[in-house]
Amino acid sequence: MTVRVAINGYGTIGKRVADAVQAQEDMTVVGVTKTRPTFEARLALEKGFDLFVAIRDNIPKFEASGLRVCGDLDALLGKCDVVIDCTPGKMGAQNLDLYKLAGVKSIFQGGEKHDLTGRSFNSLSNYGDNLGADHVRVVSCNTTGLTRTLYPLHRDIGIDKVYATMIRRGVDPNDDKKGPMNSIIPVLKVPSHHGPDVKTVIPGLDIDTTAVAVPTTLMHLHSVVVKLRKNASTEEVLDIWDRTPRVRFVSGEDGITSTSKIMEMARDMQTSRSDLMDIAVWKDGVHVIEGTLYYYQAIHQESDVVPENIDCIRAMFELTRNNMESILKTNMALMI
Amino acid sequence: MTVRVAINGYGTIGKRVADAVQAQEDMTVVGVTKTRPTFEARLALEKGFDLFVAIRDNIPKFEASGLRVCGDLDALLGKCDVVIDCTPGKMGAQNLDLYKLAGVKSIFQGGEKHDLTGRSFNSLSNYGDNLGADHVRVVSCNTTGLTRTLYPLHRDIGIDKVYATMIRRGVDPNDDKKGPMNSIIPVLKVPSHHGPDVKTVIPGLDIDTTAVAVPTTLMHLHSVVVKLRKNASTEEVLDIWDRTPRVRFVSGEDGITSTSKIMEMARDMQTSRSDLMDIAVWKDGVHVIEGTLYYYQAIHQESDVVPENIDCIRAMFELTRNNMESILKTNMALMI
Amino acid sequence: MTVRVAINGYGTIGKRVADAVQAQEDMTVVGVTKTRPTFEARLALEKGFDLFVAIRDNIPKFEASGLRVCGDLDALLGKCDVVIDCTPGKMGAQNLDLYKLAGVKSIFQGGEKHDLTGRSFNSLSNYGDNLGADHVRVVSCNTTGLTRTLYPLHRDIGIDKVYATMIRRGVDPNDDKKGPMNSIIPVLKVPSHHGPDVKTVIPGLDIDTTAVAVPTTLMHLHSVVVKLRKNASTEEVLDIWDRTPRVRFVSGEDGITSTSKIMEMARDMQTSRSDLMDIAVWKDGVHVIEGTLYYYQAIHQESDVVPENIDCIRAMFELTRNNMESILKTNMALMI
Amino acid sequence: MTVRVAINGYGTIGKRVADAVQAQEDMTVVGVTKTRPTFEARLALEKGFDLFVAIRDNIPKFEASGLRVCGDLDALLGKCDVVIDCTPGKMGAQNLDLYKLAGVKSIFQGGEKHDLTGRSFNSLSNYGDNLGADHVRVVSCNTTGLTRTLYPLHRDIGIDKVYATMIRRGVDPNDDKKGPMNSIIPVLKVPSHHGPDVKTVIPGLDIDTTAVAVPTTLMHLHSVVVKLRKNASTEEVLDIWDRTPRVRFVSGEDGITSTSKIMEMARDMQTSRSDLMDIAVWKDGVHVIEGTLYYYQAIHQESDVVPENIDCIRAMFELTRNNMESILKTNMALMI
Repeated sequence: MTVRVAINGYGTIGKRVADAVQAQEDMTVVGVTKTRPTFEARLALEKGFDLFVAIRDNIPKFEASGLRVCGDLDALLGKCDVVIDCTPGKMGAQNLDLYKLAGVKSIFQGGEKHDLTGRSFNSLSNYGDNLGADHVRVVSCNTTGLTRTLYPLHRDIGIDKVYATMIRRGVDPNDDKKGPMNSIIPVLKVPSHHGPDVKTVIPGLDIDTTAVAVPTTLMHLHSVVVKLRKNASTEEVLDIWDRTPRVRFVSGEDGITSTSKIMEMARDMQTSRSDLMDIAVWKDGVHVIEGTLYYYQAIHQESDVVPENIDCIRAMFELTRNNMESILKTNMALMI
Repeated sequence: MTVRVAINGYGTIGKRVADAVQAQEDMTVVGVTKTRPTFEARLALEKGFDLFVAIRDNIPKFEASGLRVCGDLDALLGKCDVVIDCTPGKMGAQNLDLYKLAGVKSIFQGGEKHDLTGRSFNSLSNYGDNLGADHVRVVSCNTTGLTRTLYPLHRDIGIDKVYATMIRRGVDPNDDKKGPMNSIIPVLKVPSHHGPDVKTVIPGLDIDTTAVAVPTTLMHLHSVVVKLRKNASTEEVLDIWDRTPRVRFVSGEDGITSTSKIMEMARDMQTSRSDLMDIAVWKDGVHVIEGTLYYYQAIHQESDVVPENIDCIRAMFELTRNNMESILKTNMALMI
Repeated sequence: MTVRVAINGYGTIGKRVADAVQAQEDMTVVGVTKTRPTFEARLALEKGFDLFVAIRDNIPKFEASGLRVCGDLDALLGKCDVVIDCTPGKMGAQNLDLYKLAGVKSIFQGGEKHDLTGRSFNSLSNYGDNLGADHVRVVSCNTTGLTRTLYPLHRDIGIDKVYATMIRRGVDPNDDKKGPMNSIIPVLKVPSHHGPDVKTVIPGLDIDTTAVAVPTTLMHLHSVVVKLRKNASTEEVLDIWDRTPRVRFVSGEDGITSTSKIMEMARDMQTSRSDLMDIAVWKDGVHVIEGTLYYYQAIHQESDVVPENIDCIRAMFELTRNNMESILKTNMALMI
Repeated sequence: MTVRVAINGYGTIGKRVADAVQAQEDMTVVGVTKTRPTFEARLALEKGFDLFVAIRDNIPKFEASGLRVCGDLDALLGKCDVVIDCTPGKMGAQNLDLYKLAGVKSIFQGGEKHDLTGRSFNSLSNYGDNLGADHVRVVSCNTTGLTRTLYPLHRDIGIDKVYATMIRRGVDPNDDKKGPMNSIIPVLKVPSHHGPDVKTVIPGLDIDTTAVAVPTTLMHLHSVVVKLRKNASTEEVLDIWDRTPRVRFVSGEDGITSTSKIMEMARDMQTSRSDLMDIAVWKDGVHVIEGTLYYYQAIHQESDVVPENIDCIRAMFELTRNNMESILKTNMALMI
């Protein structure tokens, strides 16, 4: 079976998921939507994707720009088995109704709340729970990052408590409108929403999070404190992560001293769009001190959820029932 | 008695301490040093301070710039009772020898280590321990900030453990050379030096800290987790801080959502140099949840240690034996 | 006569103009407006200003916040001779109607277009043209900056052509919402609106401008090329500016190498809010080469128009008929 | 003939030139040097390059890091026909002596001055002048950018005068040490060195430049004013650039409003390292007004000189005597 995938919202996440789907052998992109005739719409056509217009009234604008369109969102929904909803926040409920009406499955991103679908997904922690599901949310970039490093510790060592501080990038690199500039903005609601969100994919984990936004565009950085259930050495923790997919060590000693150095490494690795789909953990920043683990990790907010979307499709269509098989397949295809 | 104070290093901290000393009735500035004839040297003269040249060989450069100098550092040491060392890092040991040779007392800043003098100072937590002392270190801006909010909790409620993440400004506003730009740099050594440093002024406190540097110039921001020894409500904590000098509440609800908004508030308050010598705690960011306190505070790294230097002089010369009397006097004079 | 001044919009410009009016002996603030009960509203009350609510329906919100209000905008208009409109852009036309209806004079800021009132104002170049006028626009911070340095050259030497590139700060320091972050945004419309705007206060000047926005908050910087009508030496140009009010020299040789260094200088000067109402011209960046003058100047966008508003009031009420007399009076009162 | 190329300094430029050489059929990389065993040294080995140590005494450090090295710089010079010097500034004179002693040709980058070799190179403007040359400097990223757009106008229309303002990025993305942060730094020496530098590759051009540094990492932006010798329409200018290699139009109307949007476009184009070797000119920012041309262009400082280095090798070894043939070959191989 080749799953026919529609991308609703060909932006930061959508364009990456589209490329990732095309790189798999068991799924294919049948079309992408765009609301306005920007350079990203042109890009979709250059990549060979069929282009649909999310807002029907805007079709003439596309035609005026010389961009060939294949119809509106309804037309696209008629051709697909599943739609990946990559629209900006707050449209989830409305869109879910459309997808149900069209009789297609759907995947939402982490900007939507768990309650929208009642199902949240992480490839490592709960793939099996979503086998055959119809409407699922892939958790956010930050939640995905926390889950990738915390779940294996939770499973193999046990965790009493997690305190994590998220130092969040202000905006993505391609956003030239928003800030903050020269300012640090704390999220005054404590714990921040990230902690509860992790629990949607690691039930029972005791985690509290705080967050601040800072004037950078490249990556989020997490400073994490974990009270381990049983004592373990720094080496044991490193060993667990060494065996965990989509977790990559970097090292200050090698000159990788910051998020910008990590992104330089990704450019040198010649990844697609210079992305880093792995979570980067500073090996020389991991320290277990009297049963408490401290570590720093960096999250490439534009891309870490991309392979999770692919795995989620496989789970929903039961293309494979084993999460590691899907993870391996996805990683191979995406050269992660 | 009027204590005669010398400022060695009329830069970011030095120029502020000089103004603060002049505002007191029991001490006076007898001179300041500068190494090069910059606009800050000119400023010192305009303010009426006697100017001394830290590096004797540079005296001709000052004369060529038309700046009247009164001699070198030795000359200044001959006129003072105490020298406030505000020189850049790593010169402490060498300078301390000079001060001892000249037979004057000295105060160092937080860039130096505790071991230099064996004495660290915070107005609130250990004023009494430094009565009559000859050579003392005023702890750093971050340590001062942590001490101001943690010490009263430690004293009144008891603290089992503190985890604090420092989100540090990259450089001060007047430094146009250093970064980081568009990057987040973690301090991979864990715990960072801040935790042990707090223990030099609050012995016995169990505190671990992590730190990152971010691309801003205005303030450090701390995200702090405190496991309280005995349960206390959010209101009790707020009430303790409300009675603590040099801690000021700000509120996201009032529109103070970030470090840049705090600095705007300081400008509106018409403080000297738009500084904020208080530690700013977000009132609506303080939350006690099941015995664990979460809070955010912002530290104005250029100025929060200035009143501490004043109090330290009073302790060293036993101008008053009571810390609250000194704090009150200093605050009145500096309109804190 | 003491002119009764209302400030409609107690924000970045409004709060500065309010303080500046209070510092004069021939005018007084009778009230300020605010739309929401923020810390700036609280500040107005602390400063002793009567507070009015710009949006009548919001009065209960102020009362709920414990802020005493004296009425709505209409009430305020009933008490004043002139209103300084410091509301955000695009409300000019609507507000002008209100002011006319209330029978009060009004001053608008540079965010509004010349056509709104048909009158634009700069203290140096066209004070006399606005004697007794009823509704006037004080030109923007950038236009004010260009006019202060170009007008005296235009008058004393003659100018054939000006090319100026504005490197604009992204947002003001207290705005933690907008960008750009890590990006440079050109104004693709050429010439940018600044050139034509200068002609509203220096008729006949031939000037074209281009502009980019960059990720800073402190000041605009102008790189200016002037083809002089008759040859003049660098010294002659410096001499003209030396005699021009509200133009201040800074020097890279003194260590003032950037906009952040200029702002540090302003803090050291202990100006109100650390503002710099003067235009800063780099003395060692002024070069006449074969009849073409090159120079750099920096504009403190938050404050350079403040004294212009004061002078404009004097012109409109003919408190003095001579511009230099008003400029001198304003500068003395504001310690410029 | 296959030219054997050595890369001295495998950093920002060196690693890109190495990849570019490998992509050609008439040249090959015989080795690269590194001074310290960082992640870039590891990268060189992973790419299959022979690794040499620029500072012989550091060889043990490489071995301790498990990095296999093939010898020192002398060993590398013994194996190559030409060395591309990509070392940091100020080492040119010393290195040139080494290269001459070893009897190999050499190419320097724009950080060195014209006088070092007496020869400067741009593929478009003076390829023919450097046929068979032994030691040549490829001009800097900014000079290359200016030359690409100015030379064809100079040749086809004629230019009376150019005024250009360079708004320079503070540091490259991978530098997390330097600034400026929240500041604009003007180059007070006028004209800046860029103007004279352009004349080394376009003799006789009358150009004056000014420059400022701003807090971004992505690209330089130029605001250029050109007084054309004979009148030409905007369309004629666009038409000339449309036929010029390595000049690419972008458009604000398509949503490419800033340097960060251009870099996003490069990522979407899946270029190597997300680089943009073309100069980007905003099509809707090009305006001829009464014989004066205004335009904005953006320069990707990390990569625009890379194809120039390739063409320079071809000229020096007379692999082809025609510049357009080399440009075409290089562009094809690099997918420009």
